[in-house]
Amino acid sequence: MRQAQRHCGGHPGVARTRAGTSYIRDIASTRWGQRRPHSHKIVGVLRAVARAIKGVSTLATILDTITSPAQLRALSPHELTQLAEELRRTIIQTVSVNGGHLAPNLGTVELTLALHLAFDCPRDQLVWDIGHQAYPHKLVTGRAPRFATIKQYGGLSGYLRRDESPYDAFGASHASTSISAALGMAVARDLAGQDFNVVAIIGDGALTGGMALEAINNAGAMGHKLIVVLNDNDKSISDNVGALHRHLGNLRASPRYRKLRNTAKQVIEDLPVVGDLAAEVAGRTQRSMKEFVMPSKSGVIFSELGFTFLGPFDGHDIGFMVDVFEKAKQLDGPVMIQVITKKGRGYAPAEQDATKFHGPGAFDPATGEMRKKAGGPPSFSDVVGDALVDICRQDRRVVGITAAMAEGTSLNKLRVQVPDQYFDQGIAEQHSVTFAAGMATQGIIPVADIYSTFLQRAYDQVLHDVCVQNLHVALLLDRAGLVGEDGQTQHGLFDIGFLRPIPNMKLMAPKDENELRQMVYTAVYGVDGPVAVRFPRGSGVGVPLAQEFTPLPVGKGEILTDPAAAERGEVVIFGYGDMALVAKQAAEALADQGIRAVAVNPRWAKPLDEELILHLARATGHVITIENHMAAGGFGSAVLELLNAHDVRVPVKIIGVRDAFIEHGSVAKLKELCGLTSDHVQEVARALVGASVRR
Amino acid sequence: MRQAQRHCGGHPGVARTRAGTSYIRDIASTRWGQRRPHSHKIVGVLRAVARAIKGVSTLATILDTITSPAQLRALSPHELTQLAEELRRTIIQTVSVNGGHLAPNLGTVELTLALHLAFDCPRDQLVWDIGHQAYPHKLVTGRAPRFATIKQYGGLSGYLRRDESPYDAFGASHASTSISAALGMAVARDLAGQDFNVVAIIGDGALTGGMALEAINNAGAMGHKLIVVLNDNDKSISDNVGALHRHLGNLRASPRYRKLRNTAKQVIEDLPVVGDLAAEVAGRTQRSMKEFVMPSKSGVIFSELGFTFLGPFDGHDIGFMVDVFEKAKQLDGPVMIQVITKKGRGYAPAEQDATKFHGPGAFDPATGEMRKKAGGPPSFSDVVGDALVDICRQDRRVVGITAAMAEGTSLNKLRVQVPDQYFDQGIAEQHSVTFAAGMATQGIIPVADIYSTFLQRAYDQVLHDVCVQNLHVALLLDRAGLVGEDGQTQHGLFDIGFLRPIPNMKLMAPKDENELRQMVYTAVYGVDGPVAVRFPRGSGVGVPLAQEFTPLPVGKGEILTDPAAAERGEVVIFGYGDMALVAKQAAEALADQGIRAVAVNPRWAKPLDEELILHLARATGHVITIENHMAAGGFGSAVLELLNAHDVRVPVKIIGVRDAFIEHGSVAKLKELCGLTSDHVQEVARALVGASVRR
Repeated sequence: MRQAQRHCGGHPGVARTRAGTSYIRDIASTRWGQRRPHSHKIVGVLRAVARAIKGVSTLATILDTITSPAQLRALSPHELTQLAEELRRTIIQTVSVNGGHLAPNLGTVELTLALHLAFDCPRDQLVWDIGHQAYPHKLVTGRAPRFATIKQYGGLSGYLRRDESPYDAFGASHASTSISAALGMAVARDLAGQDFNVVAIIGDGALTGGMALEAINNAGAMGHKLIVVLNDNDKSISDNVGALHRHLGNLRASPRYRKLRNTAKQVIEDLPVVGDLAAEVAGRTQRSMKEFVMPSKSGVIFSELGFTFLGPFDGHDIGFMVDVFEKAKQLDGPVMIQVITKKGRGYAPAEQDATKFHGPGAFDPATGEMRKKAGGPPSFSDVVGDALVDICRQDRRVVGITAAMAEGTSLNKLRVQVPDQYFDQGIAEQHSVTFAAGMATQGIIPVADIYSTFLQRAYDQVLHDVCVQNLHVALLLDRAGLVGEDGQTQHGLFDIGFLRPIPNMKLMAPKDENELRQMVYTAVYGVDGPVAVRFPRGSGVGVPLAQEFTPLPVGKGEILTDPAAAERGEVVIFGYGDMALVAKQAAEALADQGIRAVAVNPRWAKPLDEELILHLARATGHVITIENHMAAGGFGSAVLELLNAHDVRVPVKIIGVRDAFIEHGSVAKLKELCGLTSDHVQEVARALVGASVRR
Repeated sequence: MRQAQRHCGGHPGVARTRAGTSYIRDIASTRWGQRRPHSHKIVGVLRAVARAIKGVSTLATILDTITSPAQLRALSPHELTQLAEELRRTIIQTVSVNGGHLAPNLGTVELTLALHLAFDCPRDQLVWDIGHQAYPHKLVTGRAPRFATIKQYGGLSGYLRRDESPYDAFGASHASTSISAALGMAVARDLAGQDFNVVAIIGDGALTGGMALEAINNAGAMGHKLIVVLNDNDKSISDNVGALHRHLGNLRASPRYRKLRNTAKQVIEDLPVVGDLAAEVAGRTQRSMKEFVMPSKSGVIFSELGFTFLGPFDGHDIGFMVDVFEKAKQLDGPVMIQVITKKGRGYAPAEQDATKFHGPGAFDPATGEMRKKAGGPPSFSDVVGDALVDICRQDRRVVGITAAMAEGTSLNKLRVQVPDQYFDQGIAEQHSVTFAAGMATQGIIPVADIYSTFLQRAYDQVLHDVCVQNLHVALLLDRAGLVGEDGQTQHGLFDIGFLRPIPNMKLMAPKDENELRQMVYTAVYGVDGPVAVRFPRGSGVGVPLAQEFTPLPVGKGEILTDPAAAERGEVVIFGYGDMALVAKQAAEALADQGIRAVAVNPRWAKPLDEELILHLARATGHVITIENHMAAGGFGSAVLELLNAHDVRVPVKIIGVRDAFIEHGSVAKLKELCGLTSDHVQEVARALVGASVRR
């Protein structure tokens, strides 16, 4: 393993990256290294003993002894260097097996250590934006022993959760929330007359999200003490877009930053000591800090918005960052600190392709080779990406829009193959949807491909800008339903509920990847006005893809079992979207058990195939609906409303996700837990038909 | 009438405001006045005839002859001055009768004329943000004859609608959408190789909305030609908040702006002529325009974000603005033009209190006195404001949060009486909700009072930041249900649909103002976790308010008719929220018709009073639900799900708003149209019970 080799062969404490620059500086001479809280002396002694016995270069157990971040202060700079190495190794090892976020976490190792050295958590509140860069934070806050369970069912979350650790001050996973939450905490603190620190850590990508900008605007005006660490790694998930990003890029490229990097150590030494004579020092510190504020236009946006802007600084320099944070603590009002980090830092494959290693599946840690099941069906996302390429190539009026998820949605295919008809609008779902609406007024047919969970951000734009005006905007909702390991906040379980009540909206979901391909085409050419197609995460079911497109009739479903036998059915099972084939499977199994079940792929949740649904409900006398969505307000609820409106009062069993947030785990496991399986449908059907017979 | 007096007695063309400064400058000498397109010569002749006959100072019919904005170019500066006067008079007169937006529209009279003089609509696309400042635009785009119908049923909309006029390039009413839509249009234009202009006009208040900031960030990076007119009137609806606003304030206060105002005429004369030798002039123009860019830090935020920033300019100076726009047209890439306007301009009462006259009801135009029904019950908003004051005074942990709607929500009461526990976070619902969530983590009990329609903006924040973490944030949804004259985009008809499927959420709605008072208290002290109380626009029903607070039991409804008779009922009517008293009224009327109806105030949509609902459904055998909300996915749908889950298969009639956007008109009229009346309930009940009996 490259990482291990580097560690064993190099000089600990002066480990060097491939590029040859110091990646964790030898900071033994700086003052922060000398500050060891009394209470942690014992740990320091243990460390010394461990060092004496095993030698630094082979010691790999520092992490095992860290049960709280306060213990970090007992470590020497060399030990911190060692720990950083261990954190990286642990993260690479674990993610290579479990999958998860890699590059963002390798970029925040030193930043995390510096934050926990400078701040006193959980009294001080660290609010990590998104949380996909918080693995080092998890590891040093007592969760190392459980780290191998990350993203697995019953294991640690891949994001932050208040119910997982008191060190997780605020849960996260959708971008751009941290500054709002942190400002709320800071104001609450000041209302209560308390004096802890609140620190938001936000990436440059998340800064393109409107709510982060709302929060900055508000925080700058309110003036409460608040520290925002801008973790600037020049990347969101794929390439960052937006003018603000360019503004930050100018800062990175500035001679002053280059100079600061090169003279960082000396700059630190010029700073006054902090901690001994607080009152006297505070004044001096503020004067010193002012010199860090870029004198040119750099940071001017944030300065103009009321923030004291510091930086940019090298976020991989632990000692330097500690001093910066120590001093930022003593400033009043909102402070923004720009730190430069490198995504994938310390792991060559991830440094070379941070996008590929943003959130990889399992891979070979030695080579960075992804472990792919060869020859399987394409992902639903890829099917969409290919369909859009095929459509856009033939029709210049059609465009694809992503909100910073080019890779996740496979719209990177469009970016490469039909670049003029591809638009990445940044982590900005609200803007993306109304941008699409604006295009639609001019005869363009915009296809906005947004994860179901992220479309929640643009609910009002869908309603107010698209649907009220009945504009033809096609929404593709990737990762609708249970998404598996990303858990609670990322499941796309609400879209039918929030979209169906909106007038003019049409909703589809395909049973398989070929139907998805045809639905993309149908959304573009087969309907007018707003339309949304939801489809699940993961691979297709393995059916052949018809290259030629055929639009699907609006509001028409299909019977998946023998249509001739439908009249004689005892129960009809409507399986919406990816549950259609589950319904079919259940119907076939029920046939073997002597129960005549009709399986239907309804295709549309709005408009419903009223004729088919009413007819089969009446004919069979028993209805089961199943959907990869909340049971409340979903497809089954729509069927129930329809039957009720037509006075068809037959027993209806709605199978969907019950009223609780669903944990992380494999999709298969979660489907089982939520009853989204053929076995469960059969059980419900047997009870339903049996109960009816008993009457 | 003050306005008329001023006109008749003053010098037309040099009319003066109370403060004595020229409000429409004598601009006869500037060149733009000489540009009259050939096609409009005839109109010019007609005007000259009219002048000769009637004299300018009494001529009040220019507006009557304007059927398209192109005709404006045939008017002389004096006639435009006259027209501005007429526009103001018409707006004041109409709003004083119909109610509507006043101060914002008085502020944009000259800006509108300048825009339509400089741009060629509907080929060029004007995208007005919000649209509450677009009355002058409506008046000069052929809608003057219908203007008296504004906001009335069947009349003109109070906002913008694409289906109302080809001059309304993009519908609006929620803030901050214009730049996203305009950018979409501009990109579509460039994809199609066309060359029209796209102009977004956005207020400084709407600029605090995250999606506007997302759009600016994106537009600056994309580089497409786009003009953003920043209509800076130092006000959103109530006081603007946020650092960006302060930034703009600095620009307004700058000596350069003051100088520009004073020397505007001369500056114009120094500018090159435009239109004759376009190519040669373009270069010169760009150079000239550069001089308008503030040399200091002013506008630096937008410049840094990739915009060419021009201004600030006097937005009441028609001729000057026309020249600015003519020149802006010739610039490439995104351009932002800051224009300073005064809300309420030209009408003393509105100039003095732009907040009061932002969106007044009927008033006496001569005095500005509001026409109030004396002695009526308080508004639901006022009841909430008072309840919050009473609670916050007793408990420092409770705070009230508004998103720039202090007056509308009556949280201005809290601002005045308990200012430390009052927070206005700007037109920024997303930030406001997550800010509240952040506070809740620190033991504060935040009460966020947001219109139902605006909470749509914060759907993901409610789900992801509040409900996933089960934080105790109380949401008060003002103006839930039909809001009347504000129409389509402002009705609060979706909140049950989008909130009910979210785990941990609790939903309440009161039957009257006293129950609302108790529900505010219950939301603060009677529940844990997320909770929302929806209540309608307008006045209470006139019940006494119990000053002492009594928490309501969670998930418990009440029978409004004789409880002892409930067992013997033939039909049960569940009236959610403001429909509870309609249910009661219907039940009483049905009793007179010999039908034994039970009226229930369910109080909670989540958790439902399962015991009561199931019991009464079984006992009566007929269920009617009625709600001021979409029928799909609302309270009735929840009842249907409950009954179905418990195999109670009785006839259920769900009365709610059918699947269409509802027009504007009086609330009473709209309720009638939507069947939200006692008469309709009775009709449904008779059919239901009768039908059942017939069987």
